[in-house]
Amino acid sequence: MKEAHSPDHAPLLAQVVSTGDEVLTGAIVDTNSAFIAARLLEVGLHVTRHTAVGDDALRLRDLLVEIGDHADIAVVTGGLGPTVDDITARAAADAAGVALVENAAALASIQAFFERFSRSMSPSDHKQALFPENADILFNRSGTAPGFAMTIGKCRFFFLPGVPREMQTMMAELVIPAIRADYIPPDRQQHYREKQLSLFGLPEAEVNQRLIEPSKQFKEVKLGMLARFPVIIVKLFAFGRDPDEIGSRIEAAAGRVHEALGRWMFSDNGDALETVVAGLLTGKGLTVAVAESCTGGLISDRLTNVSGSSDYFLMSAVTYANEAKTAILGVSPDTIEAHGAVSEQTAGEMAAGIRRISGADYGVATSGIAGPTGGTDDKPVGTLCVAIAGPQGVISKRRVLPFRDRAANKEIFAYVALDMLRRELIA
Amino acid sequence: MKEAHSPDHAPLLAQVVSTGDEVLTGAIVDTNSAFIAARLLEVGLHVTRHTAVGDDALRLRDLLVEIGDHADIAVVTGGLGPTVDDITARAAADAAGVALVENAAALASIQAFFERFSRSMSPSDHKQALFPENADILFNRSGTAPGFAMTIGKCRFFFLPGVPREMQTMMAELVIPAIRADYIPPDRQQHYREKQLSLFGLPEAEVNQRLIEPSKQFKEVKLGMLARFPVIIVKLFAFGRDPDEIGSRIEAAAGRVHEALGRWMFSDNGDALETVVAGLLTGKGLTVAVAESCTGGLISDRLTNVSGSSDYFLMSAVTYANEAKTAILGVSPDTIEAHGAVSEQTAGEMAAGIRRISGADYGVATSGIAGPTGGTDDKPVGTLCVAIAGPQGVISKRRVLPFRDRAANKEIFAYVALDMLRRELIA
Repeated sequence: MKEAHSPDHAPLLAQVVSTGDEVLTGAIVDTNSAFIAARLLEVGLHVTRHTAVGDDALRLRDLLVEIGDHADIAVVTGGLGPTVDDITARAAADAAGVALVENAAALASIQAFFERFSRSMSPSDHKQALFPENADILFNRSGTAPGFAMTIGKCRFFFLPGVPREMQTMMAELVIPAIRADYIPPDRQQHYREKQLSLFGLPEAEVNQRLIEPSKQFKEVKLGMLARFPVIIVKLFAFGRDPDEIGSRIEAAAGRVHEALGRWMFSDNGDALETVVAGLLTGKGLTVAVAESCTGGLISDRLTNVSGSSDYFLMSAVTYANEAKTAILGVSPDTIEAHGAVSEQTAGEMAAGIRRISGADYGVATSGIAGPTGGTDDKPVGTLCVAIAGPQGVISKRRVLPFRDRAANKEIFAYVALDMLRRELIA
Repeated sequence: MKEAHSPDHAPLLAQVVSTGDEVLTGAIVDTNSAFIAARLLEVGLHVTRHTAVGDDALRLRDLLVEIGDHADIAVVTGGLGPTVDDITARAAADAAGVALVENAAALASIQAFFERFSRSMSPSDHKQALFPENADILFNRSGTAPGFAMTIGKCRFFFLPGVPREMQTMMAELVIPAIRADYIPPDRQQHYREKQLSLFGLPEAEVNQRLIEPSKQFKEVKLGMLARFPVIIVKLFAFGRDPDEIGSRIEAAAGRVHEALGRWMFSDNGDALETVVAGLLTGKGLTVAVAESCTGGLISDRLTNVSGSSDYFLMSAVTYANEAKTAILGVSPDTIEAHGAVSEQTAGEMAAGIRRISGADYGVATSGIAGPTGGTDDKPVGTLCVAIAGPQGVISKRRVLPFRDRAANKEIFAYVALDMLRRELIA
């Protein structure tokens, strides 16, 4: 155990720092801090603050000194590159009151990286081998800039590059294992497990209501709800000494939550709705074709995002114009005349038509009004008619959704259609 | 002028704070802080820090006191709602050493909001009308929770809801005007103007190279480059006393940058590529139809994201299976046999076929290998054949792109096709 561990039973306090003018001025959104905070939480640290500062060595030094007084563990990203803006090592050395010295092992690692890609090293690249005296180098196997770890005040700092991919690898392979080994006493080591249940079609308030009983019943498992429009994710997570035990607790709670959510739940492993539908189709050796109007190709795009989609996806027709609906899909002009292009009848004939011309097992069709214009009193913006033609015939339904935004409507219309197909396949 | 303005000539220092356990634990990425920082920068403030803290009234109080000692202006988001987690007003009152009191005008505004939506107000909603004594209420016309402004230490704080849409409206309508009016002396008022040039198809290093001369020539205008795969945005911005003067400086620099970027630039107003293509088609009274294989519906989806797309978009066929290519589009089986489904010849016949059956002025077609599987030595993953059939005949070309990722390939394939149509329309 090193000097920085906290007194028994008080949780270790952690902070996350992001450096760089691009974050500070709002040119880019900082996604690193959320990632790091989630990983620190999983080993049982209590994250108290995230801070972002610019490429300013004095302000960063002051911040590191402040954090050194308050936190036990801190992870800092950015500012390790070869340019003059990369001031993190200098600021850390100043905060600790030590010199900046060239590290031979780090220099060799940077040289090796350049050789591997047959590039020559410029003088400014040498700067990346300068570290605060006595810092521990954190080698970066996917980029040139090594990170480092050092103690400032009472806090152990881990300095990582700002490139998300490099940072993520170093967090998983170097930082988290070091925190576990050096800062968490054997009797306080804990494991983290989580499971995500994805659902579509229930309002948040209703999901909340349905989670009340399960959360009372499984007090050791925490439940969180994340809205990822139009999907809601119920996250179950738990900490504990025995990874198998917390794993089975989560499974038991997930079973109960699944019961509470019913057929609205479409995935228990983070899979997207189209991946679930693809799995059901390939598992049964079935094929699908799509006739889209208001969704404009989005359903097809989603279905073909899954690798291997040519096994189950035969074709789609995006028939925006009425002429295309009749000429390509064989929708009767009388049907459009009598009921309108946006009607259960037209959607039903579109689904039957695409099934017939493609030879697919299932035909899926949408016709609706995505907006922002085109709505009427009878068929307001948000109206969707969706149909599925299958071996048992055609089912068709109308929904009116509350959104006025074109992109939101296209998105939710595509979900309604894919979810209707999913339910048909598990019926 | 209120008491918080800084001495002459020193820039006003600003900080941004985000509150809430969801941000702190990494469950959501904080996008509000980037937005707020960019707006504060535009009025000439110097943003020194962003900080995120959880739903913890004591830690937030301590942070507000700290910031009150160091900054001139601060914007805080989140924690204004009706639940027990919403602790911002309490923390602000404690930081300033004042009481929390019910504000009659805020209560009336919340009640009016509920009445407008025929909902009844619960006791916890009343909590949203409690504010630190002497705080100035910031009315929220798009949600229930009003914000407030108050002085803590030497700093003027603006507290806003965390809902991005509400926060953004209140920043633009209330906070920025108040900062301009009360904290920036008349002789130091400055204006900000920016312009974004969007381009597709040049590597970043090449764009950098092409920007060297323009940035030397227009030193008062700053140039930034943002990668938004697969688009690169060149941002030109400038500050100054006279908005017309900086506007014309930016226009002059933009003209020079446009020359340097040539036909790779597709928009000078932030419009998406599909919006530019839609504008060209409607401007000329032309129509388009699409035959997609590897892009799986993505081109159609993009073209129909533009409101009013039924004016120019007639139909598309996503013909994944070879049978669909021949049966629907009339591609000759001999062509597929001789050259393969992924070939300039097949793409050309697909484009001509969709043009013929739809009656559109232009037919656009793609056939390619998005991966991750399906590549060969001859036609590796990343191979795209794209064709346009128009009044002047069919043009067809093959590109091999360096990505191995299916989603990245679909995205860039769709851009290549749309950009080829754009160039055809401006030729």
